[in-house]
Amino acid sequence: MDTIKQSVGAKPILLPNPVLIIGTYDDNGVPNIMNVAWGGVCCSEPPCVGVSLRKATYSYQNIINRGAFTVNIPSEKFVTEADYAGIVSGREINKFEQLNLTPVKSTLVDAPYIQQFPMILECKLLHTIDIGLHTQFIGEILDIKADSSVLNDKGLPDIEKVKPFIFGSFGSRNYYSIGENIGKAFSVGNCWKK
Amino acid sequence: MDTIKQSVGAKPILLPNPVLIIGTYDDNGVPNIMNVAWGGVCCSEPPCVGVSLRKATYSYQNIINRGAFTVNIPSEKFVTEADYAGIVSGREINKFEQLNLTPVKSTLVDAPYIQQFPMILECKLLHTIDIGLHTQFIGEILDIKADSSVLNDKGLPDIEKVKPFIFGSFGSRNYYSIGENIGKAFSVGNCWKK
Repeated sequence: MDTIKQSVGAKPILLPNPVLIIGTYDDNGVPNIMNVAWGGVCCSEPPCVGVSLRKATYSYQNIINRGAFTVNIPSEKFVTEADYAGIVSGREINKFEQLNLTPVKSTLVDAPYIQQFPMILECKLLHTIDIGLHTQFIGEILDIKADSSVLNDKGLPDIEKVKPFIFGSFGSRNYYSIGENIGKAFSVGNCWKK
Repeated sequence: MDTIKQSVGAKPILLPNPVLIIGTYDDNGVPNIMNVAWGGVCCSEPPCVGVSLRKATYSYQNIINRGAFTVNIPSEKFVTEADYAGIVSGREINKFEQLNLTPVKSTLVDAPYIQQFPMILECKLLHTIDIGLHTQFIGEILDIKADSSVLNDKGLPDIEKVKPFIFGSFGSRNYYSIGENIGKAFSVGNCWKK
């Protein structure tokens, strides 16, 4: 075992990162999607998610203008679509059309979601935090919508059915599937109680 | 394939979530750790991570008082230790001692990190965002330290060597390992270019 750790430097590397596909409308009502790895839940009540975008992205101004976005969780089988959404800009290309994906207008917020993805979050913009290269948008989750095929017996999305995947960060620029169940949360740690 | 999605309700469910062990010092200089799933990178420049804690936690006041925290990434083999850190409070128990983990004082920020974990981030508190039940602390990553055994040939932490794990959210309250490589980021999506 190492006893002295090596300095890697000041870098934005955390493990693991989610793969979140953000849905927005532009000024002309054209739906757009982009791929965001900098994000996650940031509050339980109200339920909120934070996603960070660079000002230079097309989606940035869309979120500001519409005060809304969706978070679409891709299953493994959409890995190429999700990756493409992070390679090209909605300024030049209608990514929904290019990817044969169907935009559905949310009835709760002014943003589109992806019909084909198994699970989506409809978010109303609550806070805009200007941090540096990235701006964090905190959205209140007004509803989650999911295919019935990915729900468990309590009616909640089951990760083993949604089959999302992760981004391995800049140390290993690959996507990875979710592996095996290694223990029950709020339970396996009880072995340490004395 | 489902054509109409079901409403799941307004819940803080996103997939997947990281497992982040937050290190802090209390007023007496006693090191503490807690388990946080609400977090992620939120800016590339300066490199920043956001972690959300309830005000009721012992770590909350520690971060406010010291203006610093560490983010410790557990490898799979520490799943029981990581879970325990989220079950009991540092108000009652010295979790480092209980878990036989070694606190190391960061030389960059006023917080301890876990010697035995493969990769840690030393963070200076930049922003405190009061959202609701949770408060989000945005910390600037001043350095990452990692065991040489988990670095790739570019000197960066490699997810396949760090072997972190994820929290499956409230739909499936289990921890899961990282699965197989399913494609190269910024690359597999090129198949959609016309």
